[in-house]
Amino acid sequence: MKLYGYFRSSAAYRVRIALNLKGLAVEHAPVHLLRGEQNTPEFLAKNPQGLVPALELEDGSVLTQSLAIIEYLDATQPEPRLIPPDDRLAAKVRAVALAISCDIHPLNNLRVLNYLRTELRHGRKDVEAWVRHWLAGIDAVEQMIEPAPFCFGAKPSLADVCLIPQILNARRFAAPLDHFPKIMAVEAACAELPAFRAAHPSQQAGAD
Amino acid sequence: MKLYGYFRSSAAYRVRIALNLKGLAVEHAPVHLLRGEQNTPEFLAKNPQGLVPALELEDGSVLTQSLAIIEYLDATQPEPRLIPPDDRLAAKVRAVALAISCDIHPLNNLRVLNYLRTELRHGRKDVEAWVRHWLAGIDAVEQMIEPAPFCFGAKPSLADVCLIPQILNARRFAAPLDHFPKIMAVEAACAELPAFRAAHPSQQAGAD
Repeated sequence: MKLYGYFRSSAAYRVRIALNLKGLAVEHAPVHLLRGEQNTPEFLAKNPQGLVPALELEDGSVLTQSLAIIEYLDATQPEPRLIPPDDRLAAKVRAVALAISCDIHPLNNLRVLNYLRTELRHGRKDVEAWVRHWLAGIDAVEQMIEPAPFCFGAKPSLADVCLIPQILNARRFAAPLDHFPKIMAVEAACAELPAFRAAHPSQQAGAD
Repeated sequence: MKLYGYFRSSAAYRVRIALNLKGLAVEHAPVHLLRGEQNTPEFLAKNPQGLVPALELEDGSVLTQSLAIIEYLDATQPEPRLIPPDDRLAAKVRAVALAISCDIHPLNNLRVLNYLRTELRHGRKDVEAWVRHWLAGIDAVEQMIEPAPFCFGAKPSLADVCLIPQILNARRFAAPLDHFPKIMAVEAACAELPAFRAAHPSQQAGAD
């Protein structure tokens, strides 16, 4: 399998963690978002959204959307499970993943900040206030998780896979997290696992 | 079960369609977003995100996030299935649902437009341009679906459940859709089904 990603993309980072947790090796194909490589005809033929990540399977078909890719990996390579078998618990895990992936991350990604800067002509102060405003949504995540020590139990789930990249985004914008003891506990637990450490943006080819 | 929703919320509309397709009757508890009812302590105790929908189960526990709720319904009330059993097809269905739910809808919902109007002091022209810019993401959805006549085959899936509310959002902002023949075909097919018609915002108590 070949993963089209970008070292700093939160969504690609989620898929790297999931692949590592499952012990799946893939070829990494960097798509440099700042250089606009996601908008080439070649890449748009693979993902019409022009976004990373995209996972190319052995037969050449391409899966897109980080959570859809991780659900696919969890169905086809079930161990260790990232979506728990209990339906009620699975709903809680997915709710945290979606709270991050729908309600926090999309508002602060590169294309949105670029629109604020260029089309709407906002300066650094406005853009940073915007980012911090939506990052504050992580307060709800603190209330939704039940660390033991991972978000929902003794093993990492899709919730942890989404939370760790979001924590890095918060730190990039110096958003304080120290008053979230549950999130801090999850971060510490994940930092112990090589699967999370090896997926970190700083460990990817092309990281600056 | 009790569904906390709002007639105009796309995310609540998705859950209404899914419940109707599965023939599940629920009590409807309107949460009036324009009046700020989502931010009362009572509602925040049910959903710390202060968003609709939220589905209260018989034992009083509450599920949040529309896609997590629909995945739960699909696991516990499997017929008719909204996530196809084939893993590859399921990934395509989820990718369309997430392209809409992560990359189009969150950028144009009420709280974001309010931030543009109030904190960033943008007028109607800028806000409408913003909305249309992100609505244009539906172009990728046109390329991702394979209508026959629903998004992925002869029966509606989670992709259709997400696409129909997004089409309504596009029409509210007069975004043209006529050049998307596949999306138009899906809309026509869904309009034939009572489950979709009964879930329409105009059919809900409290609609204005």
